[in-house]
Amino acid sequence: MKRTQLVEKIFEKGTFLCVGLDPDSAKMPPALAEKGCEGLLEFNKNIIDATAQYCVAYKPNLAFYEAFGSKGYEVFEETCAYIRNNYPEHMIIADAKRGDIGNTARMYAKALYEGAGVDAVTLAPYMGEDSVKPFLSYEDKWAIVLALTSNASATDFEMVSDSKGVPLFERVIRRSRHWGSPVNMMYVVGATKAEYFDAVRAVAPRHFLLVPGVGAQGGSLEDVCRHGMIDECGLLVNSSRGIIHASQGDDYAEAAAEAARVMAEQMTVLLAEYAK
Amino acid sequence: MKRTQLVEKIFEKGTFLCVGLDPDSAKMPPALAEKGCEGLLEFNKNIIDATAQYCVAYKPNLAFYEAFGSKGYEVFEETCAYIRNNYPEHMIIADAKRGDIGNTARMYAKALYEGAGVDAVTLAPYMGEDSVKPFLSYEDKWAIVLALTSNASATDFEMVSDSKGVPLFERVIRRSRHWGSPVNMMYVVGATKAEYFDAVRAVAPRHFLLVPGVGAQGGSLEDVCRHGMIDECGLLVNSSRGIIHASQGDDYAEAAAEAARVMAEQMTVLLAEYAK
Repeated sequence: MKRTQLVEKIFEKGTFLCVGLDPDSAKMPPALAEKGCEGLLEFNKNIIDATAQYCVAYKPNLAFYEAFGSKGYEVFEETCAYIRNNYPEHMIIADAKRGDIGNTARMYAKALYEGAGVDAVTLAPYMGEDSVKPFLSYEDKWAIVLALTSNASATDFEMVSDSKGVPLFERVIRRSRHWGSPVNMMYVVGATKAEYFDAVRAVAPRHFLLVPGVGAQGGSLEDVCRHGMIDECGLLVNSSRGIIHASQGDDYAEAAAEAARVMAEQMTVLLAEYAK
Repeated sequence: MKRTQLVEKIFEKGTFLCVGLDPDSAKMPPALAEKGCEGLLEFNKNIIDATAQYCVAYKPNLAFYEAFGSKGYEVFEETCAYIRNNYPEHMIIADAKRGDIGNTARMYAKALYEGAGVDAVTLAPYMGEDSVKPFLSYEDKWAIVLALTSNASATDFEMVSDSKGVPLFERVIRRSRHWGSPVNMMYVVGATKAEYFDAVRAVAPRHFLLVPGVGAQGGSLEDVCRHGMIDECGLLVNSSRGIIHASQGDDYAEAAAEAARVMAEQMTVLLAEYAK
């Protein structure tokens, strides 16, 4: 997917919502959970049908599929195919957080871009350029590099400053931003760290930011927009549990649609206010 | 697997070799490569049978299986099962380099420890403690955290010093070493950085180190042992391509056995010299 297409969709639909597909069978209706992988796929399809009009992207998290082994990996592939076939204008982000040396990174890129057919992959930057570059050689595909994550222990390493006072997450952005460009790279910046969006925008003024942590993790959508939004929006805000498990009953799809609708409505207002 | 069992095996067999199972179909005999996933499994089984007496561990690299999608993930599972059933005293290390927030990390731990039945998983530390802790709650299972990797761009972040002059890889070890202990944590330290093993041993004197980069990547086995070996050995040295693709012809298994035998023979000598 091209950046221009993504930006166009965001303004056309008035939403920059990404729905995280991290289905947890313990939070699914028991009758569905009992069906194992088949139930997982049915759940995803219903969630996707219910939320597609309110979002521009889906982000399946590989761990929730691999937990079911190869059959689960198949559900991941089938979920991607379902989105691609039925909602071809939605971006598919594989939340994989892969990161390995060049020859291995090439294999992961092949698996996710060519095999599963996703548009973007989240990547861990620890090993440096070798581990990201292979994901930048595909046309209209995106590498989404972890910068500042939404979890508590982001302080362990990401926020530690170097001898010049530059925290690691900022160094990651400074160093990596020219490996690709704002048309094929994004950064993960957690909503729970809204006060850092100014620092991120100082070094990545045009990049899209993939923002987890709104909702269940406590980040404020308005704060994120105030500090992170640019004229072309530049934000994909993810919500997973808050949408897909809004209800644990049989009305899960309706509840997901409603939760997504509420977020999209807020986003329409925020786009009018901050996208300039 | 318990540390005492691992140490016992190393001295009993006179080897601390880990064989990396990163099968690249472009380097396999064409007749086997043409068989796709079936050929991949056959290749692995023959490599395992040929090398088991010369090594104490196998390290399948997930990327090389995921590149074949869910069918490839199944080959990964079948490879683990083959080792477990036929060579139960060998450690199985899933080279996955996963790293994500707690609820996701728990899913990966479930996938790899419970599903595939491996003994150990490699992990990227970028996101901090949350992303490693779930892998430390299983008895006799190991979290292997990336410290200093063997690739060229390890200099991008891993070797950058903080305001007190401590490089990131050392900070990772200092901070993480008490999340677990030397009986359930190891660190990845690349053989191409042999001069850093003294610094690593200063902060992790008892931990096992998983060492890639000997062979194809140019690291010296003797240098690694001189600077990194301890009385209980404390090293698992990995070789992947140098063993499994020692020959690209039909004699690949015999060639792998011979390459592994040569390394194991050197290791026996080095154990006598440096394990004290």
